[in-house]
Amino acid sequence: MKKEFLYAGLSRSIARQIRTGVLKTGDRLPSVRTLCREQGVSINTAKRVYLELEKQSLIEAKPQSGYFVSDRKRRILPVPETSRPSPIKSVETPNRLISKVYGNMGKKGLTLFSIGAPSAELLPVSKLNREMTKALQQLSGSGTAYEELQGNLKLRRTLARRSFFWGADLAEEDIITTTGGMNALSFCMMAVSKQGNTIAVESPVYPGILQLARGLGLRVLELPTHPVTGIEIDALKKVIHKIHLCLLVTNFSTPLGCLMPDAHKKELVQLLAAYEVPLIEDDIYGDLYFGKSRPKCCKAYDKDGMVLWCSSVSKTLAPGYRVGWVAPGRYRNAILNLKYIHSISPTAITQEVTARFLENDRYDLHLHQLRHQLQLNRDRFTDTIAAGFPPGTKISRPQGGLALWVVLPERIDTAELYERAVRQKISIAPGRMFTLQNQYNNCMRLCIGLPWTDDLSRKLTQLGKITAAL
Amino acid sequence: MKKEFLYAGLSRSIARQIRTGVLKTGDRLPSVRTLCREQGVSINTAKRVYLELEKQSLIEAKPQSGYFVSDRKRRILPVPETSRPSPIKSVETPNRLISKVYGNMGKKGLTLFSIGAPSAELLPVSKLNREMTKALQQLSGSGTAYEELQGNLKLRRTLARRSFFWGADLAEEDIITTTGGMNALSFCMMAVSKQGNTIAVESPVYPGILQLARGLGLRVLELPTHPVTGIEIDALKKVIHKIHLCLLVTNFSTPLGCLMPDAHKKELVQLLAAYEVPLIEDDIYGDLYFGKSRPKCCKAYDKDGMVLWCSSVSKTLAPGYRVGWVAPGRYRNAILNLKYIHSISPTAITQEVTARFLENDRYDLHLHQLRHQLQLNRDRFTDTIAAGFPPGTKISRPQGGLALWVVLPERIDTAELYERAVRQKISIAPGRMFTLQNQYNNCMRLCIGLPWTDDLSRKLTQLGKITAAL
Repeated sequence: MKKEFLYAGLSRSIARQIRTGVLKTGDRLPSVRTLCREQGVSINTAKRVYLELEKQSLIEAKPQSGYFVSDRKRRILPVPETSRPSPIKSVETPNRLISKVYGNMGKKGLTLFSIGAPSAELLPVSKLNREMTKALQQLSGSGTAYEELQGNLKLRRTLARRSFFWGADLAEEDIITTTGGMNALSFCMMAVSKQGNTIAVESPVYPGILQLARGLGLRVLELPTHPVTGIEIDALKKVIHKIHLCLLVTNFSTPLGCLMPDAHKKELVQLLAAYEVPLIEDDIYGDLYFGKSRPKCCKAYDKDGMVLWCSSVSKTLAPGYRVGWVAPGRYRNAILNLKYIHSISPTAITQEVTARFLENDRYDLHLHQLRHQLQLNRDRFTDTIAAGFPPGTKISRPQGGLALWVVLPERIDTAELYERAVRQKISIAPGRMFTLQNQYNNCMRLCIGLPWTDDLSRKLTQLGKITAAL
Repeated sequence: MKKEFLYAGLSRSIARQIRTGVLKTGDRLPSVRTLCREQGVSINTAKRVYLELEKQSLIEAKPQSGYFVSDRKRRILPVPETSRPSPIKSVETPNRLISKVYGNMGKKGLTLFSIGAPSAELLPVSKLNREMTKALQQLSGSGTAYEELQGNLKLRRTLARRSFFWGADLAEEDIITTTGGMNALSFCMMAVSKQGNTIAVESPVYPGILQLARGLGLRVLELPTHPVTGIEIDALKKVIHKIHLCLLVTNFSTPLGCLMPDAHKKELVQLLAAYEVPLIEDDIYGDLYFGKSRPKCCKAYDKDGMVLWCSSVSKTLAPGYRVGWVAPGRYRNAILNLKYIHSISPTAITQEVTARFLENDRYDLHLHQLRHQLQLNRDRFTDTIAAGFPPGTKISRPQGGLALWVVLPERIDTAELYERAVRQKISIAPGRMFTLQNQYNNCMRLCIGLPWTDDLSRKLTQLGKITAAL
């Protein structure tokens, strides 16, 4: 109670300073650390103060810089609350809705706010094509022969070298390639679980993860998840004795876009290791950070080989290449065996081209440009939504990745919004897709990985009008 | 009893005619049909007569031509007997042996009689590379984007058209592409079975099938299998009430190379349909026939959608492309769902290039040359083995495919032979790999998909010497 009072009182004081003009638009607030020291409060209380002010759109976080007083003439939409899925397991996979949304994606002329990968326009397609042509000339034959079981050596070596950027020091032997990221997750789930086991995931969560888990006969436990910091570790602690494995997108998850702080990652890895619960870490968005540096991964804190770190180039380079990988820690032999019995090996030539592309500066140059585009898009989307969507709309503020999570007023059913929008050639991903429970019916995910054009801007405004009319 | 007497008596008479010179080397014997009519016996009896003579190396079958009196100065090795696996289920997957054999394959300088795909030298590598380069130029972007869920339309259309050659008339909607043939089998097994179910397979059988089935928690029932005609339908009838699914390589299976006659295929499909047992038909070798025409598939007789027909280009065009497919009949939705949740989609560019290659005459021209090489190799291998392997050796006489099955005298353990051969830079596939039971220890599989050179010929002779010394 006293703690509640503390953070509430502090945030009220700061709010008053902003309203009375003591603090002005653009002013920088003291750091969380300074606030702790000056006010003699805990780090959690200090963070809570700023989260509260952020929710009221009075202040804004800027990556790697701190908190600033918002421009209150510009409408700033509040960030959604922490999700509160039921701790009771539920089994309603929204397969029909998912099939409809994915099924329509192939239709010509549809604006795909619903898609989960960047548009080809944002990817280095012609550079990749040139590299493939060169690889074919240089490697007569090797592109048509079976790859070695563990995968292209050059690719594994490059990935191992790059692991330094996110806090690990993997070796080429630690990595096994797969047919895209989903295939890595599938092998990992098969390796560490059996039918009837319980898997803990964030909520809302990527529908493919729900379908895969259900397809393998797992029970799914959705965890309360904060749109900025990811799953609530305390909530996980309460159910840890009930779960057999955990799958988390620790960096810029879809649809929330949350980034788990380093301290959470470390605590999470220690907690799971203590209970011998393997963690499948899906890091497919990790390279798409808007901040100054690549976020770390849970794998960086993994001392016991219990973290199976998965990633791919589907969100950064070439979705159609189907090049993914996993560093499975102590589950190496199990994954190699699954890879062998379910597919023998992935396509050879796309692994080779990916390896060549990652080996030199081209990849980092491309990532730099892609991240810049995505960050601009996040702001353009956010501003357009703030300008045209109905009162009560909330929106996530991702620090990386491809997704925006939009929470509409409770009365709006996004499955119905989907139907109306599709008639006007606009496709969205309704919130119900991202859970097994009856929730998020007033939410949707929008992809920011589309080239920003006048037409796209008009379509987004149009979507706001359709929403408001509901 | 009477029937036994009939075939034995008839074959004795013909054997006498050959030994006394009434029938001379190269003479053609009456057709099975004529023999029936002339002798007033059943078709089965007539066939049995010739099989008996073939076993004694007195006569030889020539594809599409009939039976001829053998050249008895040339040593003709007998064909192995029908296999007799135990009807009791067994669980000893020979994983260590398999890992050793596959693990060594990457070693430089090893002659790979153990491999399961044709050498790059026999494949149209540079034509495929040129086609890929062209495809990249023409399709900017589409090779890097996600493929539509069901797979490349052009490829599915071409495969549907080609189904005419093997007795079916599939439509493009009937086919779903996969990441190679093994991935098709994996999805099929997952779609039609659950843990604890029993799967019937031929014996000896491809080890990947055993490992996959065991990996999915299935019980495996190995069926008695004739090296010329495949599984014994009567043996299947006896256990049909115990099995939940059946997986057969109906055309030129590895390792036996047997070709199931059309009448067996038809009877099999009707039998399985009556008991509602799905059949996964693995047709990866079907295009590699040495006879005059493409053999039919069980799928051609499938009226109830119970046959899941699988194939790939791994044995004919490009193992490293990982392009496979399945026509899953009534299991279409289940397979689409599995494909989506486990991998999203296969690599796009290799599907496109395969489609382009299959669309015109190039594929058939290539197949024509490849089949010619393989048939020549079968004869060269057979003659070399006949000339140098120890007395008591038996050998399969495949009418297509890539494998020769060699049965050595009982005292020879091919796991030991493997060790000795590898020290002399020769790799074989020991028979124990192809079963879950303790059998085939004196057998081995040799791949005939290697370019025939003086060196290869020497290595095969050397293998005979190592064998004889054991």
